[in-house]
Amino acid sequence: MSRRTVSHEDGAIYEFTPDLEGIATVEPGTELTIETRDSLDGAVQAETDVLESVPEEVNAATGPIEIDGADPGDVLRVEIAEIRIAEPQGRVITTDGFGLLDGHDGIEAPRTRLTPVDGDAGTIAFGDLEVPIEPVIGTIGVAPDSESYTTLVPHDHGGNLDTTDMTAGNVAYFPVFREGAMLAMGDCKAAMADGEMCGTGSEIATEIDVTVDVIETPELALQRPLVETPDAWKTIASAETLEAACELANGDAIDLLAAEHGFDRTEAYMVSSLVGGLEISQVVDPLVTVRNAVPKAYLSSPF
Amino acid sequence: MSRRTVSHEDGAIYEFTPDLEGIATVEPGTELTIETRDSLDGAVQAETDVLESVPEEVNAATGPIEIDGADPGDVLRVEIAEIRIAEPQGRVITTDGFGLLDGHDGIEAPRTRLTPVDGDAGTIAFGDLEVPIEPVIGTIGVAPDSESYTTLVPHDHGGNLDTTDMTAGNVAYFPVFREGAMLAMGDCKAAMADGEMCGTGSEIATEIDVTVDVIETPELALQRPLVETPDAWKTIASAETLEAACELANGDAIDLLAAEHGFDRTEAYMVSSLVGGLEISQVVDPLVTVRNAVPKAYLSSPF
Repeated sequence: MSRRTVSHEDGAIYEFTPDLEGIATVEPGTELTIETRDSLDGAVQAETDVLESVPEEVNAATGPIEIDGADPGDVLRVEIAEIRIAEPQGRVITTDGFGLLDGHDGIEAPRTRLTPVDGDAGTIAFGDLEVPIEPVIGTIGVAPDSESYTTLVPHDHGGNLDTTDMTAGNVAYFPVFREGAMLAMGDCKAAMADGEMCGTGSEIATEIDVTVDVIETPELALQRPLVETPDAWKTIASAETLEAACELANGDAIDLLAAEHGFDRTEAYMVSSLVGGLEISQVVDPLVTVRNAVPKAYLSSPF
Repeated sequence: MSRRTVSHEDGAIYEFTPDLEGIATVEPGTELTIETRDSLDGAVQAETDVLESVPEEVNAATGPIEIDGADPGDVLRVEIAEIRIAEPQGRVITTDGFGLLDGHDGIEAPRTRLTPVDGDAGTIAFGDLEVPIEPVIGTIGVAPDSESYTTLVPHDHGGNLDTTDMTAGNVAYFPVFREGAMLAMGDCKAAMADGEMCGTGSEIATEIDVTVDVIETPELALQRPLVETPDAWKTIASAETLEAACELANGDAIDLLAAEHGFDRTEAYMVSSLVGGLEISQVVDPLVTVRNAVPKAYLSSPF
């Protein structure tokens, strides 16, 4: 099957809604290249371009892409093969009212720093510092069940998860809530810390190679996103507080451990407290996101 | 210099107070073996031994050890060389009113599971699961400045940090608040997940080989614990909420980055948002603990 390209110029969304309509329809198993623009829609090209506040439209997500045959209750499998940087510079910004240390002593907003790309070295520059390019898909998700969420918000449908594991070599899984799933993604970073403390990574345009597939009516229903790395399965949850997100992510990890080993929930909870553990995705979006990693030594594929 | 042994039988504390008095006095540079009993003082030896609540005295910390010449404003350096398991089994427990999912559906408390040690394999067993022994010092700290903290509580003096990086091969740094520093440690685990969700790891007695040293009047004053791994410097902070702990840990990381590179705080904040990142230590103690990792590629020793 030949690779198919879907560009943000074909269509992009700023809100995940239950009634999304696809700009492209593909069969399960299709290899796609998805072109994404930077999260700020190209508005920041110089260090004098500063943003007084978070734009109303931010994190454009290329799509939606309808996956033929995906039905509610299925799981959408998105294998991320490669993420290529598609412009010569990224940007890191602060903006008023956003970021972990917003309003703290010495933290200025708005401010912009450009991070030029050195393609040969595989780095971006922040002043004299060279930072390896390790691209992250910031926003990735599907049509939600009943509520709508702007692309600034993460929730059970995915969305603005800002999770460093959304990267090449990993596989993302999403619950299918609506017919066709309606996959969309964008808001990529050339590099990002766990936490995304200042509110951004190095925001940048990319080309993402993925293979999409559908897991029909899995035994274990998925309620929230899940990501598979070479070493671990990680549940992902977003909530008002990190504590509440930890509870959700840990609860989901317990369900996986219990199903695999025949543990009751208390036994699975105890095992979750011994191996892998809780990880921070981001602490800056309207809902915050954590994950619970369970090493593959203790968990095979739930599907 | 010959190695010196300090045992919990010589002395152990259940509270870090400003007026601690040493049970042993050592010179900077001393190699110590510190023997610790399990966090539950041996009360749980069978799966029928369950704890109705967190004991009033818990997490016995062997010590305090007075380090000759350590003065307020100095930094205590604790290089962790090896942690040996010192009993044939650990234990994982739930107890009422404690743990991330306390009171959730299907989570029973109190319950106890034993985790027998296989010394040859280097594992503990949880039922049929074999979990590699990767020991963690749960409680480690010094005399605080003015308040007192039971060994159940983590704070700027250290204490019940429950941080997986407190392990062999790493170096822990603590602010010295009181003359002699008054180092104490215990509450070790044979294995523990980041988060320590059920409220414990595999609690177990150990022998810990450390070398203690004093960094006199460092240029950058340390306000909270710091840990050095082979790859990163990690600030550690505890607070009422994970969000507040993240703010403290990120602020400390920014101070280190700014001092090293001559960045202003906003630039350092932006760099902190690109590399390494926030990590969860524990989400179950009276204050919760996070760390902010900065890879050594961007930070040399602050001392």
